[in-house]
Amino acid sequence: MTPTDPGPESTRPPPTRRRPGGRTARVRTQVLDAVLAELGEHGYDGLTMDAVAARSGVHRTTVYRRWVDVGGLLADVLDAASDDDWQPPDTGSLEGDLAALNLEIQTALTAQPPIVAALIAASFRSEKAFHAQQRLWEDRYARCEIVVGRAVRRGELSPHTDARRLLIVATAPLYHQLVLLRTSPDPHLPGHAARTAALAAAAGAFAESPSAGHT
Amino acid sequence: MTPTDPGPESTRPPPTRRRPGGRTARVRTQVLDAVLAELGEHGYDGLTMDAVAARSGVHRTTVYRRWVDVGGLLADVLDAASDDDWQPPDTGSLEGDLAALNLEIQTALTAQPPIVAALIAASFRSEKAFHAQQRLWEDRYARCEIVVGRAVRRGELSPHTDARRLLIVATAPLYHQLVLLRTSPDPHLPGHAARTAALAAAAGAFAESPSAGHT
Repeated sequence: MTPTDPGPESTRPPPTRRRPGGRTARVRTQVLDAVLAELGEHGYDGLTMDAVAARSGVHRTTVYRRWVDVGGLLADVLDAASDDDWQPPDTGSLEGDLAALNLEIQTALTAQPPIVAALIAASFRSEKAFHAQQRLWEDRYARCEIVVGRAVRRGELSPHTDARRLLIVATAPLYHQLVLLRTSPDPHLPGHAARTAALAAAAGAFAESPSAGHT
Repeated sequence: MTPTDPGPESTRPPPTRRRPGGRTARVRTQVLDAVLAELGEHGYDGLTMDAVAARSGVHRTTVYRRWVDVGGLLADVLDAASDDDWQPPDTGSLEGDLAALNLEIQTALTAQPPIVAALIAASFRSEKAFHAQQRLWEDRYARCEIVVGRAVRRGELSPHTDARRLLIVATAPLYHQLVLLRTSPDPHLPGHAARTAALAAAAGAFAESPSAGHT
């Protein structure tokens, strides 16, 4: 069963984390940074194992052995992206939290170079990248549960709120407009979508029957 | 300016229309039917000009001259899809209309073979296919304006309702779950998303200030 509360946000450019660590960790950082740079400059179609190896300064034999193919590189970039301490914004209200979250999503989806958009596009090309993108989204939606939990504690929402549905409704319009329809970014959209979800929530749109529970 | 009301639904498998017509129209039908069949069987990666020509029985020189490349074939399939008389369902209520529309979308996005899903995926591969997919979505959202118009006439909605935003909110969760997150289809989702949009609309989420108007 999925967590009570969802949380979107697959959105910030995946920070390849610089851990204190040995040579293996350094090699990973060098390679993943090179993937991001190549992806930003050339997109999926221009991404090759050899270019990544050359840019990273890591021997191509190592790159092939450890990541196998471009899908493996992209999957590891996406997996590395959830290896951070990101938390959703805490603004003091449900609508405020959702609007701040949506603003982060819109910023990430419209950033230049379009790393996040390119990673989502790559998930239509590579099964490995797709599964890693799914894991990242699941991680982000799970972390966002706290937004709904806080609203419940403030008395803004019923404890029997389907948090995942609420978070999907709040964030889906951003992805729909920016990833699928690819309309020009609307500066009002993050706030509008947040307000819509908050109004629907107040009207009971995400209420679950108490017996269904969330556990 | 975009139309007042939006309308989703890019969703049914594009019917290549069988017009009474001359040889040119027949050739188009044969070729586009072959594109759909090849796409359904092999996906974008298996779609080639030569396979389409062979399957359609149309000479490959003609196929290359008229459609140029795979992107050209996909774009024409998508353009042909709006050459129909599709109208959104009329159930007598806003929520009912949105739920019926969402059910059509969910059915199309989960159909086997996955033609509609493959066309959306192709829009991340080919600029021509992407622009044609945009035109098709625009056509479908425009036709759905009538759903909001009818709700206004029934007194369910204010005449100052931003129909496009309402339709995006109602339909985006379907695309988000089925195209991006690719979760298992939830039979309740079409109705839930419709109800959420209708509740938000009743709470004034899509109200525009009268002065902003819609002309």
